[in-house]
Amino acid sequence: MNLNELEQRIISKKSFICLGLDTDINLIPKHLLDLDDPVFRFNKSLVDRLSKKIVAVKINTAFYEARGSSGWISLEKTIKYIRNNYPKIFTIADAKRADIGNTSKMYAKAFFEQMDFHSITLSPYMGCDSVTEFLKFKNKFVILLSLTSNPSAKDFQLKNDLYLNIISESQKWQHSKRIMYVVGATKPEYLSNIRNLNEDCFLLIPGIGSQGGKIEEVIQKTTKKNKRVLINISRAIIYADGGINYLDGAERVVDLYNGRNK
Amino acid sequence: MNLNELEQRIISKKSFICLGLDTDINLIPKHLLDLDDPVFRFNKSLVDRLSKKIVAVKINTAFYEARGSSGWISLEKTIKYIRNNYPKIFTIADAKRADIGNTSKMYAKAFFEQMDFHSITLSPYMGCDSVTEFLKFKNKFVILLSLTSNPSAKDFQLKNDLYLNIISESQKWQHSKRIMYVVGATKPEYLSNIRNLNEDCFLLIPGIGSQGGKIEEVIQKTTKKNKRVLINISRAIIYADGGINYLDGAERVVDLYNGRNK
Repeated sequence: MNLNELEQRIISKKSFICLGLDTDINLIPKHLLDLDDPVFRFNKSLVDRLSKKIVAVKINTAFYEARGSSGWISLEKTIKYIRNNYPKIFTIADAKRADIGNTSKMYAKAFFEQMDFHSITLSPYMGCDSVTEFLKFKNKFVILLSLTSNPSAKDFQLKNDLYLNIISESQKWQHSKRIMYVVGATKPEYLSNIRNLNEDCFLLIPGIGSQGGKIEEVIQKTTKKNKRVLINISRAIIYADGGINYLDGAERVVDLYNGRNK
Repeated sequence: MNLNELEQRIISKKSFICLGLDTDINLIPKHLLDLDDPVFRFNKSLVDRLSKKIVAVKINTAFYEARGSSGWISLEKTIKYIRNNYPKIFTIADAKRADIGNTSKMYAKAFFEQMDFHSITLSPYMGCDSVTEFLKFKNKFVILLSLTSNPSAKDFQLKNDLYLNIISESQKWQHSKRIMYVVGATKPEYLSNIRNLNEDCFLLIPGIGSQGGKIEEVIQKTTKKNKRVLINISRAIIYADGGINYLDGAERVVDLYNGRNK
């Protein structure tokens, strides 16, 4: 999949939604706990139900690592299921890794070879050579943190416009066409700065839903020239209804957000 | 274990060495490949052989994740073995994580509860609230990236003295006594700046050995007032002799580096 195809899917599906599978075994409906690998079953059922109304899935590795190697198995099963059954859904490993070259090569192997994710989120702190090994993969994408959705983003990212510097510097790197950026919806006043700096880059926008960002404002500020935006929503969808009707609850929230894409 | 105890062990063992278990299954001696879980066996044999001559062990998660869930099992077995058999060795999960609060809580659970590491390396890019959940653990430590050992550290860390700002800002955070810092040995001219800014903070120093940093220079610049330094060496020790005598090779390199601690 390339980014033009992803943009075309956003337009044809009339959806910017990236489903965030931040799946916490303590929060999924209780009736699933009797099944083998309830986390995988929960993820599978959500993707099966929502696949026509979303364009991407983001899997947050922390929620799987918290359960040790059995969590890692749920992660592997989830990405394998999605890639085999929904090849047109764009997949994101929300891993926020990056390290020196020989180590980043191992992370790239983990997420692009062992598991076949289309993309991975990375921290830009260590600079170009910590990202290079990921960018060598054709048809794979790096999503660099620019401005995150948490309150403490101000501690370092906003000082000396570091969040903008990350974008302008990384656009000079080899294979920079394979770089997307994370920009939090909780900071809409800065979204315009980013679009003024770069009209074309693809943005992954977390912070809608539980974190309080407003989808209409985000779309208005980021899609003037094109539709290169993924809006991640996790908890507000997957835990919309904590009981036996969780799939109805999830679909209702997806419909609600898709209905606001004006 | 607290950091005073760690410093005392550095003094009594006359060693600053942190053994880096960046264990790549393709690089370990071939005769181990017939055993069950060769990566664990390799790690175990190295720690058994070197435990009296080192003070810490750093396990780089990338090398385990690259093998999927079976790699994660080797990781779990390695940390469990070390914690059960060598409780006085300081253990570091070199994971370079950090995320918004509810996600960082899951990473802290993975590395401080599921596995019982003493400490974890974190990227500072997302600021205070991405680190808070780790700092809540008593007797656990966060090792924040300040200045890394890779060439591209210059891209963002050296601009506007960001690497120093990370230290001075994070020292204002709650439980800041539980924060240590990563500073690469490949940039000795900056080690003095860090020690001038903060004489007391504990430093984890990678970049000796394969990456070219010089141990004498590092020790001279960082231990004027105290001995609060861990020097990580990975490949130069664990792959010193790639054959059946790999433990002799590893011990020889450790002796060589310990002999230079003047």
